[in-house]
Amino acid sequence: MPKLNIVKIGGAIIEQKEKLLSFLKDFTGIKGPKVLVHGGGKRATAWAEKLGIPVQMKDGRRVTNLDTLELITALYAGQVNKSIVAHLQGLGCNALGLSGADADSIKAVKRPVGSINYGFVGDVTWVNNDWFNQIFKQNIIPVYCAITHDGNGQLLNTNADTITAEIGKSLAKDFEIKLNYCFELPGVMKDIEDSSSLIKKINKQSYQNLLLTNTISQGMIPKLQNAFDALDGGVSEVAIGNSKMINRATPYTSITLR
Amino acid sequence: MPKLNIVKIGGAIIEQKEKLLSFLKDFTGIKGPKVLVHGGGKRATAWAEKLGIPVQMKDGRRVTNLDTLELITALYAGQVNKSIVAHLQGLGCNALGLSGADADSIKAVKRPVGSINYGFVGDVTWVNNDWFNQIFKQNIIPVYCAITHDGNGQLLNTNADTITAEIGKSLAKDFEIKLNYCFELPGVMKDIEDSSSLIKKINKQSYQNLLLTNTISQGMIPKLQNAFDALDGGVSEVAIGNSKMINRATPYTSITLR
Repeated sequence: MPKLNIVKIGGAIIEQKEKLLSFLKDFTGIKGPKVLVHGGGKRATAWAEKLGIPVQMKDGRRVTNLDTLELITALYAGQVNKSIVAHLQGLGCNALGLSGADADSIKAVKRPVGSINYGFVGDVTWVNNDWFNQIFKQNIIPVYCAITHDGNGQLLNTNADTITAEIGKSLAKDFEIKLNYCFELPGVMKDIEDSSSLIKKINKQSYQNLLLTNTISQGMIPKLQNAFDALDGGVSEVAIGNSKMINRATPYTSITLR
Repeated sequence: MPKLNIVKIGGAIIEQKEKLLSFLKDFTGIKGPKVLVHGGGKRATAWAEKLGIPVQMKDGRRVTNLDTLELITALYAGQVNKSIVAHLQGLGCNALGLSGADADSIKAVKRPVGSINYGFVGDVTWVNNDWFNQIFKQNIIPVYCAITHDGNGQLLNTNADTITAEIGKSLAKDFEIKLNYCFELPGVMKDIEDSSSLIKKINKQSYQNLLLTNTISQGMIPKLQNAFDALDGGVSEVAIGNSKMINRATPYTSITLR
Protein backbone atom coordinates (compact mmCIF):
# COMPACT_ATOMS: atom_id res chain seq x y z
CA MET A 1 0.00 0.00 0.00
CA PRO A 2 1.21 3.56 -0.66
CA LYS A 3 2.31 5.57 2.37
CA LEU A 4 0.37 8.59 3.66
CA ASN A 5 1.60 11.07 6.26
CA ILE A 6 -0.92 13.03 8.31
CA VAL A 7 0.64 15.88 10.27
CA LYS A 8 -1.03 17.78 13.10
CA ILE A 9 0.28 21.13 14.33
CA GLY A 10 -1.03 22.97 17.36
CA GLY A 11 -1.53 26.54 18.40
CA ALA A 12 1.99 27.45 19.53
CA ILE A 13 3.57 27.01 16.10
CA ILE A 14 0.79 29.02 14.42
CA GLU A 15 1.37 32.02 16.67
CA GLN A 16 4.94 32.59 15.49
CA LYS A 17 5.24 33.40 11.80
CA GLU A 18 8.89 32.35 11.48
CA LYS A 19 8.34 29.01 13.19
CA LEU A 20 5.29 28.38 11.02
CA LEU A 21 7.16 29.17 7.78
CA SER A 22 10.05 26.93 8.82
CA PHE A 23 7.61 24.11 9.61
CA LEU A 24 5.75 24.56 6.30
CA LYS A 25 9.08 24.32 4.43
CA ASP A 26 9.78 21.01 6.22
CA PHE A 27 6.23 19.86 5.49
CA THR A 28 6.61 20.38 1.73
CA GLY A 29 9.66 18.07 1.90
CA ILE A 30 7.59 15.05 2.98
CA LYS A 31 7.43 12.71 0.00
CA GLY A 32 4.16 11.28 -1.32
CA PRO A 33 0.60 12.21 -0.37
CA LYS A 34 0.13 14.10 2.88
CA VAL A 35 -2.51 15.87 4.94
CA LEU A 36 -2.04 18.82 7.31
CA VAL A 37 -4.40 19.34 10.27
CA HIS A 38 -4.06 22.52 12.32
CA GLY A 39 -5.37 23.78 15.62
CA GLY A 40 -6.30 27.33 16.36
CA GLY A 41 -3.85 29.41 18.27
CA LYS A 42 -4.50 31.79 21.11
CA ARG A 43 -6.03 34.61 19.11
CA ALA A 44 -9.54 33.21 19.68
CA THR A 45 -9.39 34.19 23.35
CA ALA A 46 -8.08 37.70 22.60
CA TRP A 47 -10.68 38.33 19.88
CA ALA A 48 -13.51 36.89 22.03
CA GLU A 49 -12.66 39.41 24.75
CA LYS A 50 -12.59 42.37 22.35
CA LEU A 51 -15.78 41.29 20.57
CA GLY A 52 -17.52 40.80 23.93
CA ILE A 53 -18.10 37.07 23.44
CA PRO A 54 -18.12 35.54 26.92
CA VAL A 55 -15.86 32.50 27.33
CA GLN A 56 -17.82 29.77 29.12
CA MET A 57 -15.77 27.08 30.84
CA LYS A 58 -17.10 23.85 32.32
CA ASP A 59 -14.73 21.47 34.12
CA GLY A 60 -11.80 23.38 32.62
CA ARG A 61 -13.06 22.97 29.05
CA ARG A 62 -14.31 25.69 26.76
CA VAL A 63 -18.00 25.48 25.89
CA THR A 64 -18.75 26.19 22.22
CA ASN A 65 -21.84 28.39 22.11
CA LEU A 66 -23.02 29.84 18.77
CA ASP A 67 -20.99 33.07 19.11
CA THR A 68 -17.84 31.08 19.94
CA LEU A 69 -18.46 28.75 17.00
CA GLU A 70 -18.76 31.76 14.64
CA LEU A 71 -15.55 33.21 16.02
CA ILE A 72 -13.48 30.03 15.72
CA THR A 73 -14.91 29.38 12.24
CA ALA A 74 -13.68 32.85 11.29
CA LEU A 75 -10.24 32.38 12.83
CA TYR A 76 -9.53 28.70 12.11
CA ALA A 77 -11.28 28.11 8.75
CA GLY A 78 -10.58 31.66 7.55
CA GLN A 79 -7.54 33.43 8.88
CA VAL A 80 -5.27 30.56 9.98
CA ASN A 81 -6.27 28.11 7.23
CA LYS A 82 -5.96 30.52 4.30
CA SER A 83 -2.69 31.96 5.57
CA ILE A 84 -1.21 28.42 5.70
CA VAL A 85 -2.59 27.62 2.23
CA ALA A 86 -1.17 30.82 0.69
CA HIS A 87 2.26 30.15 2.23
CA LEU A 88 2.26 26.53 1.00
CA GLN A 89 1.34 27.75 -2.49
CA GLY A 90 4.28 30.16 -2.26
CA LEU A 91 6.49 27.13 -1.48
CA GLY A 92 5.24 25.30 -4.59
CA CYS A 93 2.92 22.96 -2.67
CA ASN A 94 -0.58 22.80 -4.17
CA ALA A 95 -2.54 23.14 -0.91
CA LEU A 96 -6.31 23.19 -0.53
CA GLY A 97 -7.80 24.54 2.72
CA LEU A 98 -10.83 22.74 4.09
CA SER A 99 -13.29 22.23 6.89
CA GLY A 100 -15.17 18.95 7.22
CA ALA A 101 -18.22 20.61 5.62
CA ASP A 102 -16.31 21.20 2.38
CA ALA A 103 -17.07 18.48 -0.17
CA ASP A 104 -18.86 16.68 2.70
CA SER A 105 -15.46 15.37 3.71
CA ILE A 106 -15.77 14.87 7.49
CA LYS A 107 -19.14 14.33 9.13
CA ALA A 108 -19.76 14.52 12.86
CA VAL A 109 -22.61 14.31 15.32
CA LYS A 110 -23.24 16.99 17.95
CA ARG A 111 -22.07 15.57 21.26
CA PRO A 112 -25.14 14.52 23.29
CA VAL A 113 -25.86 16.62 26.37
CA GLY A 114 -24.84 14.57 29.39
CA SER A 115 -23.74 15.92 32.74
CA ILE A 116 -21.96 18.63 30.73
CA ASN A 117 -23.36 20.45 27.67
CA TYR A 118 -20.32 21.25 25.52
CA GLY A 119 -22.46 23.11 22.98
CA PHE A 120 -21.61 22.89 19.28
CA VAL A 121 -18.93 20.23 19.61
CA GLY A 122 -18.86 17.35 17.13
CA ASP A 123 -17.72 13.73 17.37
CA VAL A 124 -16.57 12.40 13.98
CA THR A 125 -18.82 9.71 12.47
CA TRP A 126 -17.60 9.44 8.86
CA VAL A 127 -14.64 10.39 6.66
CA ASN A 128 -15.16 10.66 2.87
CA ASN A 129 -12.35 8.41 1.51
CA ASP A 130 -13.45 8.98 -2.10
CA TRP A 131 -12.86 12.70 -1.72
CA PHE A 132 -9.34 12.24 -0.29
CA ASN A 133 -8.43 9.77 -3.03
CA GLN A 134 -9.67 12.13 -5.78
CA ILE A 135 -7.66 15.00 -4.32
CA PHE A 136 -4.47 12.95 -3.95
CA LYS A 137 -4.78 11.87 -7.64
CA GLN A 138 -4.54 15.58 -8.55
CA ASN A 139 -1.44 16.00 -6.32
CA ILE A 140 -3.39 18.37 -4.11
CA ILE A 141 -2.50 18.59 -0.41
CA PRO A 142 -5.52 18.98 1.91
CA VAL A 143 -5.11 21.38 4.85
CA TYR A 144 -7.81 20.84 7.48
CA CYS A 145 -8.94 23.12 10.26
CA ALA A 146 -10.65 21.44 13.22
CA ILE A 147 -14.24 22.13 12.14
CA THR A 148 -16.70 19.48 10.95
CA HIS A 149 -20.42 19.49 10.04
CA ASP A 150 -23.49 17.40 10.82
CA GLY A 151 -24.78 17.20 7.23
CA ASN A 152 -27.86 19.25 8.15
CA GLY A 153 -26.37 22.71 7.91
CA GLN A 154 -24.62 22.89 11.30
CA LEU A 155 -20.88 23.41 11.66
CA LEU A 156 -19.29 21.76 14.72
CA ASN A 157 -16.10 22.38 16.67
CA THR A 158 -13.98 19.22 16.78
CA ASN A 159 -10.67 18.45 18.48
CA ALA A 160 -7.76 18.61 16.00
CA ASP A 161 -5.99 15.55 17.49
CA THR A 162 -9.20 13.55 17.04
CA ILE A 163 -9.73 14.70 13.42
CA THR A 164 -6.16 13.62 12.66
CA ALA A 165 -6.77 10.15 14.12
CA GLU A 166 -10.18 9.75 12.42
CA ILE A 167 -8.80 10.67 8.97
CA GLY A 168 -5.98 8.19 9.59
CA LYS A 169 -8.24 5.31 10.67
CA SER A 170 -10.57 5.79 7.71
CA LEU A 171 -7.81 6.12 5.10
CA ALA A 172 -6.01 3.08 6.56
CA LYS A 173 -8.14 1.04 4.12
CA ASP A 174 -6.22 2.63 1.22
CA PHE A 175 -2.85 3.69 2.68
CA GLU A 176 -0.12 2.75 5.14
CA ILE A 177 -0.73 5.60 7.58
CA LYS A 178 1.72 7.51 9.76
CA LEU A 179 0.24 10.11 12.10
CA ASN A 180 2.64 12.87 13.14
CA TYR A 181 1.60 14.84 16.23
CA CYS A 182 3.83 17.91 16.54
CA PHE A 183 4.10 19.77 19.84
CA GLU A 184 6.68 21.72 21.84
CA LEU A 185 8.62 18.77 23.36
CA PRO A 186 10.88 16.24 21.60
CA GLY A 187 8.32 13.51 22.35
CA VAL A 188 7.23 11.40 25.34
CA MET A 189 9.82 11.91 28.07
CA LYS A 190 10.61 10.37 31.42
CA ASP A 191 11.67 13.78 32.70
CA ILE A 192 10.35 16.87 30.90
CA GLU A 193 13.44 18.86 31.97
CA ASP A 194 15.88 16.32 30.52
CA SER A 195 15.85 15.94 26.73
CA SER A 196 18.01 12.80 26.99
CA SER A 197 15.08 11.09 28.74
CA LEU A 198 13.11 10.87 25.48
CA ILE A 199 11.41 7.48 25.02
CA LYS A 200 12.11 6.63 21.39
CA LYS A 201 9.82 3.63 21.06
CA ILE A 202 6.58 2.67 22.79
CA ASN A 203 4.41 -0.34 21.99
CA LYS A 204 1.31 -1.66 23.72
CA GLN A 205 3.32 -3.80 26.11
CA SER A 206 5.89 -1.19 27.09
CA TYR A 207 3.04 1.35 27.50
CA GLN A 208 1.52 -0.88 30.22
CA ASN A 209 4.89 -0.96 32.00
CA LEU A 210 5.24 2.83 31.73
CA LEU A 211 1.77 3.22 33.25
CA LEU A 212 2.47 0.75 36.08
CA THR A 213 5.73 2.48 36.99
CA ASN A 214 4.14 5.98 36.77
CA THR A 215 6.83 6.97 34.27
CA ILE A 216 4.56 9.13 32.08
CA SER A 217 3.12 12.49 33.08
CA GLN A 218 -0.67 12.71 33.39
CA GLY A 219 -0.81 15.18 30.48
CA MET A 220 0.64 12.65 28.04
CA ILE A 221 -1.78 9.83 28.87
CA PRO A 222 -4.71 11.10 26.72
CA LYS A 223 -2.32 11.62 23.78
CA LEU A 224 -1.03 8.06 24.12
CA GLN A 225 -4.51 6.60 24.49
CA ASN A 226 -5.53 8.51 21.34
CA ALA A 227 -2.45 7.05 19.61
CA PHE A 228 -3.28 3.43 20.57
CA ASP A 229 -6.89 4.00 19.55
CA ALA A 230 -5.63 5.03 16.07
CA LEU A 231 -3.27 2.03 15.91
CA ASP A 232 -6.11 -0.32 16.91
CA GLY A 233 -8.09 1.32 14.07
CA GLY A 234 -5.52 0.38 11.44
CA VAL A 235 -2.95 3.20 11.54
CA SER A 236 0.62 1.83 11.22
CA GLU A 237 2.62 4.30 13.28
CA VAL A 238 2.07 7.34 15.47
CA ALA A 239 4.92 9.82 15.92
CA ILE A 240 4.87 12.32 18.79
CA GLY A 241 7.54 15.00 18.85
CA ASN A 242 8.80 18.39 17.86
CA SER A 243 7.70 19.69 14.45
CA LYS A 244 11.28 19.29 13.19
CA MET A 245 10.81 15.50 13.30
CA ILE A 246 8.72 15.42 10.12
CA ASN A 247 11.56 16.03 7.70
CA ARG A 248 14.80 16.08 9.66
CA ALA A 249 16.84 13.53 11.50
CA THR A 250 15.66 14.66 14.95
CA PRO A 251 14.56 11.97 17.43
CA TYR A 252 10.92 11.54 18.41
CA THR A 253 8.65 8.98 20.09
CA SER A 254 7.48 6.30 17.70
CA ILE A 255 4.37 4.43 18.85
CA THR A 256 3.39 1.13 17.27
CA LEU A 257 1.25 -1.83 18.37
CA ARG A 258 4.19 -4.25 18.70
CA MET B 1 -20.94 23.45 -25.20
CA PRO B 2 -22.39 22.62 -21.76
CA LYS B 3 -23.97 25.51 -19.85
CA LEU B 4 -22.45 26.93 -16.67
CA ASN B 5 -24.15 29.39 -14.31
CA ILE B 6 -22.01 31.65 -12.13
CA VAL B 7 -24.01 33.43 -9.42
CA LYS B 8 -22.79 36.37 -7.36
CA ILE B 9 -24.53 37.44 -4.16
CA GLY B 10 -23.68 40.55 -2.20
CA GLY B 11 -23.60 41.62 1.40
CA ALA B 12 -27.27 42.41 2.00
CA ILE B 13 -28.49 38.85 1.42
CA ILE B 14 -25.76 37.41 3.66
CA GLU B 15 -26.81 39.56 6.61
CA GLN B 16 -30.29 38.06 6.83
CA LYS B 17 -30.32 34.34 7.61
CA GLU B 18 -33.82 33.69 6.22
CA LYS B 19 -33.12 35.48 2.94
CA LEU B 20 -29.84 33.60 2.60
CA LEU B 21 -31.47 30.21 3.21
CA SER B 22 -34.23 30.99 0.72
CA PHE B 23 -31.62 32.02 -1.86
CA LEU B 24 -29.51 28.90 -1.26
CA LYS B 25 -32.61 26.73 -1.81
CA ASP B 26 -33.15 28.49 -5.16
CA PHE B 27 -29.46 28.11 -5.99
CA THR B 28 -29.55 24.31 -5.50
CA GLY B 29 -32.36 24.23 -8.09
CA ILE B 30 -30.13 25.53 -10.91
CA LYS B 31 -29.47 22.60 -13.22
CA GLY B 32 -25.98 21.62 -14.36
CA PRO B 33 -22.62 22.87 -13.11
CA LYS B 34 -22.66 26.13 -11.17
CA VAL B 35 -20.39 28.41 -9.14
CA LEU B 36 -21.35 30.69 -6.26
CA VAL B 37 -19.33 33.85 -5.51
CA HIS B 38 -20.15 35.82 -2.37
CA GLY B 39 -19.28 39.21 -0.99
CA GLY B 40 -18.75 39.99 2.65
CA GLY B 41 -21.54 41.68 4.48
CA LYS B 42 -21.38 44.53 6.90
CA ARG B 43 -19.93 42.64 9.85
CA ALA B 44 -16.38 43.54 8.79
CA THR B 45 -16.95 47.18 9.77
CA ALA B 46 -18.51 46.26 13.14
CA TRP B 47 -15.74 43.80 13.99
CA ALA B 48 -13.02 46.20 12.83
CA GLU B 49 -14.33 48.80 15.27
CA LYS B 50 -14.46 46.38 18.21
CA LEU B 51 -11.04 44.92 17.43
CA GLY B 52 -9.57 48.43 17.12
CA ILE B 53 -8.59 48.02 13.45
CA PRO B 54 -8.75 51.51 11.91
CA VAL B 55 -10.76 51.74 8.68
CA GLN B 56 -8.76 53.73 6.13
CA MET B 57 -10.72 55.26 3.29
CA LYS B 58 -9.24 56.91 0.20
CA ASP B 59 -11.56 58.51 -2.40
CA GLY B 60 -14.48 56.71 -0.76
CA ARG B 61 -12.83 53.29 -1.06
CA ARG B 62 -11.63 51.10 1.76
CA VAL B 63 -7.87 50.59 1.88
CA THR B 64 -6.85 46.99 2.66
CA ASN B 65 -3.98 47.15 5.14
CA LEU B 66 -2.62 43.91 6.69
CA ASP B 67 -4.96 44.04 9.71
CA THR B 68 -7.98 44.59 7.46
CA LEU B 69 -6.88 41.74 5.19
CA GLU B 70 -6.64 39.38 8.20
CA LEU B 71 -10.09 40.45 9.36
CA ILE B 72 -11.81 39.99 5.99
CA THR B 73 -10.02 36.67 5.47
CA ALA B 74 -11.47 35.57 8.82
CA LEU B 75 -14.98 36.78 8.03
CA TYR B 76 -15.28 36.04 4.29
CA ALA B 77 -13.17 32.87 3.86
CA GLY B 78 -14.09 31.57 7.32
CA GLN B 79 -17.40 32.58 8.82
CA VAL B 80 -19.47 33.51 5.74
CA ASN B 81 -18.01 30.90 3.38
CA LYS B 82 -18.26 27.91 5.75
CA SER B 83 -21.76 28.87 6.88
CA ILE B 84 -22.90 28.90 3.22
CA VAL B 85 -21.14 25.58 2.55
CA ALA B 86 -22.69 23.88 5.59
CA HIS B 87 -26.17 25.11 4.61
CA LEU B 88 -25.74 23.93 1.00
CA GLN B 89 -24.61 20.51 2.29
CA GLY B 90 -27.78 20.44 4.42
CA LEU B 91 -29.75 21.05 1.21
CA GLY B 92 -28.06 18.10 -0.51
CA CYS B 93 -25.71 20.25 -2.62
CA ASN B 94 -22.08 19.08 -2.46
CA ALA B 95 -20.48 22.50 -1.93
CA LEU B 96 -16.78 23.23 -1.53
CA GLY B 97 -15.73 26.58 -0.04
CA LEU B 98 -12.69 28.25 -1.54
CA SER B 99 -10.46 31.27 -1.82
CA GLY B 100 -8.33 31.81 -4.91
CA ALA B 101 -5.31 30.48 -2.98
CA ASP B 102 -6.95 27.06 -2.57
CA ALA B 103 -5.71 24.63 -5.22
CA ASP B 104 -4.04 27.68 -6.83
CA SER B 105 -7.38 28.38 -8.46
CA ILE B 106 -7.39 32.19 -8.92
CA LYS B 107 -4.15 34.13 -9.15
CA ALA B 108 -3.90 37.90 -8.88
CA VAL B 109 -1.28 40.63 -8.82
CA LYS B 110 -1.15 43.26 -6.10
CA ARG B 111 -2.50 46.47 -7.60
CA PRO B 112 0.45 48.78 -8.36
CA VAL B 113 0.68 51.89 -6.21
CA GLY B 114 -0.42 54.85 -8.33
CA SER B 115 -1.97 58.06 -7.09
CA ILE B 116 -3.78 55.85 -4.55
CA ASN B 117 -2.28 52.92 -2.62
CA TYR B 118 -5.15 50.49 -2.10
CA GLY B 119 -2.94 48.14 -0.07
CA PHE B 120 -3.43 44.37 -0.36
CA VAL B 121 -5.88 44.48 -3.27
CA GLY B 122 -5.44 42.05 -6.14
CA ASP B 123 -6.27 42.22 -9.86
CA VAL B 124 -6.98 38.74 -11.28
CA THR B 125 -4.36 37.49 -13.75
CA TRP B 126 -5.20 33.79 -14.15
CA VAL B 127 -8.00 31.31 -13.48
CA ASN B 128 -7.17 27.58 -13.19
CA ASN B 129 -9.62 26.00 -15.68
CA ASP B 130 -8.24 22.49 -15.02
CA TRP B 131 -9.20 22.78 -11.37
CA PHE B 132 -12.78 23.87 -12.14
CA ASN B 133 -13.20 21.08 -14.70
CA GLN B 134 -11.92 18.44 -12.24
CA ILE B 135 -14.32 19.66 -9.56
CA PHE B 136 -17.33 19.76 -11.91
CA LYS B 137 -16.58 16.16 -12.95
CA GLN B 138 -17.07 15.16 -9.30
CA ASN B 139 -20.39 17.08 -9.16
CA ILE B 140 -18.89 19.45 -6.61
CA ILE B 141 -20.15 23.05 -6.46
CA PRO B 142 -17.40 25.63 -5.79
CA VAL B 143 -18.31 28.49 -3.43
CA TYR B 144 -15.82 31.38 -3.70
CA CYS B 145 -15.16 34.22 -1.33
CA ALA B 146 -13.60 37.34 -2.81
CA ILE B 147 -10.00 36.59 -1.81
CA THR B 148 -7.20 35.65 -4.22
CA HIS B 149 -3.44 35.09 -3.88
CA ASP B 150 -0.28 36.18 -5.67
CA GLY B 151 1.35 32.72 -5.75
CA ASN B 152 4.13 33.90 -3.44
CA GLY B 153 2.35 33.49 -0.12
CA GLN B 154 0.30 36.69 -0.10
CA LEU B 155 -3.51 36.70 0.08
CA LEU B 156 -5.20 39.62 -1.71
CA ASN B 157 -8.62 41.26 -1.39
CA THR B 158 -10.44 41.22 -4.73
CA ASN B 159 -13.80 42.62 -5.80
CA ALA B 160 -16.46 39.87 -5.91
CA ASP B 161 -18.08 41.23 -9.12
CA THR B 162 -14.67 41.10 -10.81
CA ILE B 163 -13.92 37.54 -9.62
CA THR B 164 -17.29 36.45 -11.04
CA ALA B 165 -16.50 38.01 -14.43
CA GLU B 166 -12.93 36.64 -14.51
CA ILE B 167 -14.06 33.06 -13.73
CA GLY B 168 -16.68 33.45 -16.46
CA LYS B 169 -14.27 34.77 -19.11
CA SER B 170 -11.72 32.03 -18.43
CA LEU B 171 -14.25 29.17 -18.38
CA ALA B 172 -15.90 30.50 -21.56
CA LYS B 173 -13.37 28.30 -23.39
CA ASP B 174 -15.13 25.21 -22.00
CA PHE B 175 -18.71 26.32 -21.26
CA GLU B 176 -21.56 28.52 -22.44
CA ILE B 177 -21.46 30.98 -19.54
CA LYS B 178 -24.27 32.90 -17.86
CA LEU B 179 -23.26 35.34 -15.12
CA ASN B 180 -25.99 36.13 -12.59
CA TYR B 181 -25.43 39.28 -10.53
CA CYS B 182 -27.95 39.36 -7.68
CA PHE B 183 -28.71 42.59 -5.85
CA GLU B 184 -31.64 44.33 -4.16
CA LEU B 185 -33.42 45.70 -7.27
CA PRO B 186 -35.27 43.76 -10.00
CA GLY B 187 -32.55 44.78 -12.49
CA VAL B 188 -31.56 47.87 -14.48
CA MET B 189 -34.44 50.34 -14.21
CA LYS B 190 -35.39 53.63 -15.83
CA ASP B 191 -36.88 54.77 -12.53
CA ILE B 192 -35.68 53.07 -9.33
CA GLU B 193 -39.02 53.85 -7.64
CA ASP B 194 -41.08 52.19 -10.39
CA SER B 195 -40.66 48.42 -10.77
CA SER B 196 -42.54 48.49 -14.09
CA SER B 197 -39.64 50.53 -15.53
CA LEU B 198 -37.34 47.46 -15.56
CA ILE B 199 -35.33 47.22 -18.78
CA LYS B 200 -35.59 43.52 -19.69
CA LYS B 201 -33.01 43.44 -22.46
CA ILE B 202 -29.87 45.47 -23.13
CA ASN B 203 -27.37 44.91 -25.92
CA LYS B 204 -24.34 46.95 -26.93
CA GLN B 205 -26.36 49.16 -29.26
CA SER B 206 -29.25 49.85 -26.90
CA TYR B 207 -26.70 50.51 -24.11
CA GLN B 208 -25.24 53.38 -26.18
CA ASN B 209 -28.74 54.83 -26.58
CA LEU B 210 -29.42 54.51 -22.84
CA LEU B 211 -26.15 56.35 -22.14
CA LEU B 212 -26.89 59.12 -24.66
CA THR B 213 -30.37 59.71 -23.26
CA ASN B 214 -29.11 59.61 -19.64
CA THR B 215 -31.61 56.84 -18.87
CA ILE B 216 -29.36 54.84 -16.52
CA SER B 217 -28.33 55.95 -13.03
CA GLN B 218 -24.62 56.62 -12.49
CA GLY B 219 -24.42 53.73 -10.00
CA MET B 220 -25.40 51.17 -12.64
CA ILE B 221 -22.82 52.24 -15.24
CA PRO B 222 -19.82 50.37 -13.70
CA LYS B 223 -21.98 47.21 -13.39
CA LEU B 224 -22.96 47.46 -17.06
CA GLN B 225 -19.40 48.16 -18.19
CA ASN B 226 -18.26 45.11 -16.19
CA ALA B 227 -21.02 43.10 -17.94
CA PHE B 228 -19.96 44.17 -21.45
CA ASP B 229 -16.33 43.49 -20.56
CA ALA B 230 -17.34 39.91 -19.65
CA LEU B 231 -19.40 39.55 -22.85
CA ASP B 232 -16.47 40.83 -24.93
CA GLY B 233 -14.38 38.19 -23.11
CA GLY B 234 -16.58 35.32 -24.29
CA VAL B 235 -19.41 35.15 -21.72
CA SER B 236 -22.80 34.50 -23.42
CA GLU B 237 -25.20 36.36 -21.14
CA VAL B 238 -25.13 38.55 -18.04
CA ALA B 239 -28.24 38.72 -15.84
CA ILE B 240 -28.67 41.56 -13.34
CA GLY B 241 -31.57 41.34 -10.92
CA ASN B 242 -33.05 40.21 -7.65
CA SER B 243 -31.76 36.89 -6.27
CA LYS B 244 -35.14 35.32 -6.99
CA MET B 245 -34.34 35.49 -10.72
CA ILE B 246 -31.96 32.54 -10.61
CA ASN B 247 -34.59 29.84 -10.28
CA ARG B 248 -38.01 31.48 -10.53
CA ALA B 249 -39.96 33.17 -13.25
CA THR B 250 -39.23 36.69 -12.02
CA PRO B 251 -38.13 39.29 -14.58
CA TYR B 252 -34.57 40.64 -14.68
CA THR B 253 -32.25 42.53 -17.02
CA SER B 254 -30.60 40.29 -19.59
CA ILE B 255 -27.46 41.74 -21.16
CA THR B 256 -26.03 40.29 -24.35
CA LEU B 257 -23.76 41.62 -27.09
CA ARG B 258 -26.45 41.72 -29.81
